[in-house]
Amino acid sequence: MTPDPVQIYALADSSPMVPIPGIEMRGVFGRGASINVVTIEAGAILPMHRHPHEQLGVVLEGILILTTEDGDHEIGPDEAYVVPGNVEHAGTAGEGGCVVLDVFVPARDEYREAAAPPRTG
Amino acid sequence: MTPDPVQIYALADSSPMVPIPGIEMRGVFGRGASINVVTIEAGAILPMHRHPHEQLGVVLEGILILTTEDGDHEIGPDEAYVVPGNVEHAGTAGEGGCVVLDVFVPARDEYREAAAPPRTG
Repeated sequence: MTPDPVQIYALADSSPMVPIPGIEMRGVFGRGASINVVTIEAGAILPMHRHPHEQLGVVLEGILILTTEDGDHEIGPDEAYVVPGNVEHAGTAGEGGCVVLDVFVPARDEYREAAAPPRTG
Repeated sequence: MTPDPVQIYALADSSPMVPIPGIEMRGVFGRGASINVVTIEAGAILPMHRHPHEQLGVVLEGILILTTEDGDHEIGPDEAYVVPGNVEHAGTAGEGGCVVLDVFVPARDEYREAAAPPRTG
């Protein structure tokens, strides 16, 4: 029997990665890209960094403050962003915190520890 | 002056693509991948299809019923799926409709007509 090639994952059952206190990342991995659902509590700051991966994101809840070399950008629900590879950026949340969905191309293999497990049942 | 390499998009201002009545897709495009926020009303059916693009998705609201050769999978909020390239699948929603976020690798260029415009102001 051929295994089912479609996989379903339970994000809520992930052991989140916590790169900074107040920031939790839960992941889903494909061959060519990975998704992270990122929860940022008010006051938590992901400091300026860069990576070769392209990053596409959508804000799901709250306000993300995305900082780039040209300043701060407040991004809310129904808004999205693209950060090209190797472009410096930092992130923090508005007053109520935020939830964003980030896509990385290629997949961020170093985040696999926070991969969501396959759904059971 | 170098243009800001980070782009911000207003998904709500997209002209959605409507592949089937009751299904609306709004897009964000990077170089290596694209995102579609897909709204499926109850009763709308995206019929069986396949594409070479890998597809990763997260259910944001409601229940997605993802059909593959091995049957129907009901997928809810906080759950995610990966459909490898060229694997047949179909989609419909549970009773209240659903909203899902799909990632395609490489980008689905044929969906660019529904790309979200850059945010103004």
